[in-house]
Amino acid sequence: MENYLLHLECSSCGEIYPHEIPQNVCHSCGKPLFARYALEQLVDTWKPEHLQTRPPSLWRYRELLPICADEHIVSLGETITPLIHAKRLGAQLGLSELWIKDESRLPTGSFKARGLAMAISKAKELDISKLAIPSAGNAATALSVYAACAGIPAHIFMPKDTPVFNQETCRLAGANVTLIDGLITDAGKIVADRKKDAGWFDVSTLKEPYRVEGKKTMGFELAEQFGWKLPDVIIYPTGGGTGIVGMWKGFAELEAIGWIGKKRPRFISVQAAGCAPIVKAWEEGKSNAEPWQDAHTVAGGLRVPQAIGDFLILEAIYKSEGAAVAVTDDAIREAMQLLPTTEGILTCPEGAATVAALKPLIANGIIKPSEQVVLFNTGGYQA
Amino acid sequence: MENYLLHLECSSCGEIYPHEIPQNVCHSCGKPLFARYALEQLVDTWKPEHLQTRPPSLWRYRELLPICADEHIVSLGETITPLIHAKRLGAQLGLSELWIKDESRLPTGSFKARGLAMAISKAKELDISKLAIPSAGNAATALSVYAACAGIPAHIFMPKDTPVFNQETCRLAGANVTLIDGLITDAGKIVADRKKDAGWFDVSTLKEPYRVEGKKTMGFELAEQFGWKLPDVIIYPTGGGTGIVGMWKGFAELEAIGWIGKKRPRFISVQAAGCAPIVKAWEEGKSNAEPWQDAHTVAGGLRVPQAIGDFLILEAIYKSEGAAVAVTDDAIREAMQLLPTTEGILTCPEGAATVAALKPLIANGIIKPSEQVVLFNTGGYQA
Repeated sequence: MENYLLHLECSSCGEIYPHEIPQNVCHSCGKPLFARYALEQLVDTWKPEHLQTRPPSLWRYRELLPICADEHIVSLGETITPLIHAKRLGAQLGLSELWIKDESRLPTGSFKARGLAMAISKAKELDISKLAIPSAGNAATALSVYAACAGIPAHIFMPKDTPVFNQETCRLAGANVTLIDGLITDAGKIVADRKKDAGWFDVSTLKEPYRVEGKKTMGFELAEQFGWKLPDVIIYPTGGGTGIVGMWKGFAELEAIGWIGKKRPRFISVQAAGCAPIVKAWEEGKSNAEPWQDAHTVAGGLRVPQAIGDFLILEAIYKSEGAAVAVTDDAIREAMQLLPTTEGILTCPEGAATVAALKPLIANGIIKPSEQVVLFNTGGYQA
Repeated sequence: MENYLLHLECSSCGEIYPHEIPQNVCHSCGKPLFARYALEQLVDTWKPEHLQTRPPSLWRYRELLPICADEHIVSLGETITPLIHAKRLGAQLGLSELWIKDESRLPTGSFKARGLAMAISKAKELDISKLAIPSAGNAATALSVYAACAGIPAHIFMPKDTPVFNQETCRLAGANVTLIDGLITDAGKIVADRKKDAGWFDVSTLKEPYRVEGKKTMGFELAEQFGWKLPDVIIYPTGGGTGIVGMWKGFAELEAIGWIGKKRPRFISVQAAGCAPIVKAWEEGKSNAEPWQDAHTVAGGLRVPQAIGDFLILEAIYKSEGAAVAVTDDAIREAMQLLPTTEGILTCPEGAATVAALKPLIANGIIKPSEQVVLFNTGGYQA
């Protein structure tokens, strides 16, 4: 099929890089690179009707994905995740249009599969020979299985208190696992320090340009599931932040090719009270977030003291007239019971955080009873 | 939509029962009841093309499902599970057409969601007020969340060594959990003894007529994914056996409405060496299985010493010219690593058993190198 990928562009300074060789961040300013496509060529030639005969997987949005040749695609069946109308929970809270996008239904049980399917396919296309990643858990599991499937060795660095499920699945898939005494940011430093000597390609969130391309498909699916009309509000748990950044980018691309209009959902970022750098920055009206000290929360995926994409997350929140809110671990634990008892959906702590955020958001008038509100359950429950 | 469900029919003696009231097994002979449909009305009026515009979920086969009114459907988004061409594992074993249907991608991470989505929807339709189930784990988790979603109290009985994931998820969904000192058959006896006094409806495999209707959709999906031509061989892990029984029934229905021809896959039942009643019966050419003594295996879902549907499982194996094979726990553990390292698919021990069965089946000439072979990974890995 025809390929519309043009080049990579720095999300901050705009410098252009070729996509034909491996790239990490901008050489000039150190910020994330974004894939850019020949969108104008798709206007009037590629239409939503073309999707109808394609299989129900994220690869149906092929024209806006960065893999040049189909034979490089590494796929474990990235099926479209269900969008569930949460009528019982909505009724309890006084919301008539509460929806949950259940990302636990992707390979390895979390939304991380989207980004890693894309990153590993591209790594295969670019003939990358060794991969390394710092992770809070689910990204490591996803990287491990896609890398195994592509036949590329993977080196995993994660906190020693990472859930057993993630540790075991990485090992089952044959990855090299190192548990460290620290947080994901410390794991990231180890990868950064060792990668040159070891010959590893760094697959860290937003330090690798294609994971975000996988994440944007959450926005594509949501738009398609709502008939190319976006909801009023998206509530999303924020660690590294690629989910919000990806969807924001994806919506811009959909508008550019004429599939959606100007309306954007208000993005509401949810963080844990014990690690809320984005919430703090938003409350202070800043465009960058300061590193969070002494980060702690039951939601390992939200224990990210500093995110390289902070300015991109905050930009999406400000421009969409959204908000950022922190929830306590107790509220997260309570939500982990509320969601299955009302809607039958089992959730990870990160997904539960979006449920926990509903009460304060309603109380503060940030979301209104009749608005169309979408929560992202980013992963499944793990024992 | 129009309703094609006619009545229930005993799978052994043929006695007819109305579907408008709750039913368990045949009052005359104690065997499972099957839902029967007005198939002749669907010939020439319902066609595969009609599926194209329906959402990718098992509910697309609506005409052959037993729920009479749409408003009773309890759904958590039962998406079509991916059928993955296992090229790397196939190459290792000398099989060019090895496929894996990954059932771990259903709600609660296992194929059990299919049967319980159907059973709980029907329970809601029939206004059943309390449910009880004996389970080895995954069925309990699935029942718990669907029952919560339907607002029907659920009583779970399972062995005390049931995986922590299942115990915790049942409790998160608000079910009443009793751990017992025994096997699933012992749990089944407790439900049978107490149900009358407690007013519970027994949702045991094949003692409830609609779980098998959910399971048959595995066969419908497989047929659709292969373009309405069935594969040569289906390798399926067998505990209670509804998977094989359901697919066998489903294929007969598809043939009756003219969507597939006479060809059937050879059904190969895989059991654990420590609990292999179906394998023993098949080896001895019997049409019923004797209860297995001292059942033990790492695959909890295969630790079923006696199945009420034994004669139906064996019938499908004999009529399809299939086979039955037992694999050791060591071979299962080895397969739990082989599948993720080659294909990136994480699996439960039961799904791994089908991978473990490949080597002996090839060595014995039961499957041939060029045949189209489908393994069912019935559930995801749990820590």
